Amino acid sequence: MTPPFENYLPSGIDRFDKQMHFIAEIDAMTHILRQTVLLDKSRQENDAEHSWHTAVMAQILSEHFVEPCNVPRAVMMLTVHDLIEIYAGDTFAYDQSGNQTKEEREKQSADRLFALLPSEQGEKIRSLWEEFDSRATADSRFAACMDVLQPFYHNTLTEGHTWKKHSVKKSSVLARMDIIRTSMPKIWSWVEQNLERACKEGWLLDE
Amino acid sequence: MTPPFENYLPSGIDRFDKQMHFIAEIDAMTHILRQTVLLDKSRQENDAEHSWHTAVMAQILSEHFVEPCNVPRAVMMLTVHDLIEIYAGDTFAYDQSGNQTKEEREKQSADRLFALLPSEQGEKIRSLWEEFDSRATADSRFAACMDVLQPFYHNTLTEGHTWKKHSVKKSSVLARMDIIRTSMPKIWSWVEQNLERACKEGWLLDE
Repeated sequence: MTPPFENYLPSGIDRFDKQMHFIAEIDAMTHILRQTVLLDKSRQENDAEHSWHTAVMAQILSEHFVEPCNVPRAVMMLTVHDLIEIYAGDTFAYDQSGNQTKEEREKQSADRLFALLPSEQGEKIRSLWEEFDSRATADSRFAACMDVLQPFYHNTLTEGHTWKKHSVKKSSVLARMDIIRTSMPKIWSWVEQNLERACKEGWLLDE
Repeated sequence: MTPPFENYLPSGIDRFDKQMHFIAEIDAMTHILRQTVLLDKSRQENDAEHSWHTAVMAQILSEHFVEPCNVPRAVMMLTVHDLIEIYAGDTFAYDQSGNQTKEEREKQSADRLFALLPSEQGEKIRSLWEEFDSRATADSRFAACMDVLQPFYHNTLTEGHTWKKHSVKKSSVLARMDIIRTSMPKIWSWVEQNLERACKEGWLLDE
């Protein structure tokens, strides 16, 4: 979607006009659908909703994370961690071919999106996303935990909706959730029990 | 909507189970529709999307705010500022009768919602919401600016969609936007120019 910039009345403040164009552009997050469904299964969740949900989760679950981390910073990171999907689209975690091209598509999307902002601001948000993607810091590892825990939890509450739909294997989910085992070990047994139940119920392929 | 708690597998960790119930409950934000439409006018925006959008805006626009403020804290405040609408519903800013009962409805909603969390966490999120509502601190005034600027901007980009639909008066919008005049004065002339244009185009009633 192209935002209706023809209705934008310039402020004459160069930085503000760039910032407001960016703000209109990211409304597109509401149209990027994820594989996860809302809890009433009425429709797929979108990237704006997912980003918001993980940002609130971070404020609730930080005590279970093993490293010292800057929670407000992780919250900010989570609000912007999927912005690059605006032009790259959402890549399903268990889509092997999509994940082969993900890195390049997301880099190109980032180049285009962050160029809308005043340069130092674009750099700042971009580096938050890059840090998130790297998992090289405590803040980014905590944010990554929220990013994998949220769809996992939705699947457990919706009878494995997305797992069933895509015939996902237990081993794939185990690999994706591994960051919880290492970074939020206190809740790992809860994850394992949910995986076991999901296999027993036929929501996940146990192979 | 009642989240499908029957599918919740208890962790045995009292705090974690409460936290996860709260996290499932707030998925309801995706079903609370606001009067504002998305920029392509395809549908009404929901509270999760609005909360996310304002939280990102805060990271972009803080330089135009006149007071020193803690931006990461304002971002967290914005992610939770509308949670109390889960049981109280969204009250349209220009709905006079709805606004007469808003305070009581939101208080009752807060009592019910935050009781789901471990008590000190419920208190913490509740006090963030109360601070937001009070506008008594710099952080809450900055958050309030984002909360009014976002739907104002959506209206300017969608030919006054919501203003036209509800025959909103310019004087009502001026009153609502007053916090921008005092707290973000550098962009006030942009607000005024948009109001003037909206009247000229017939999007707002100039009376």
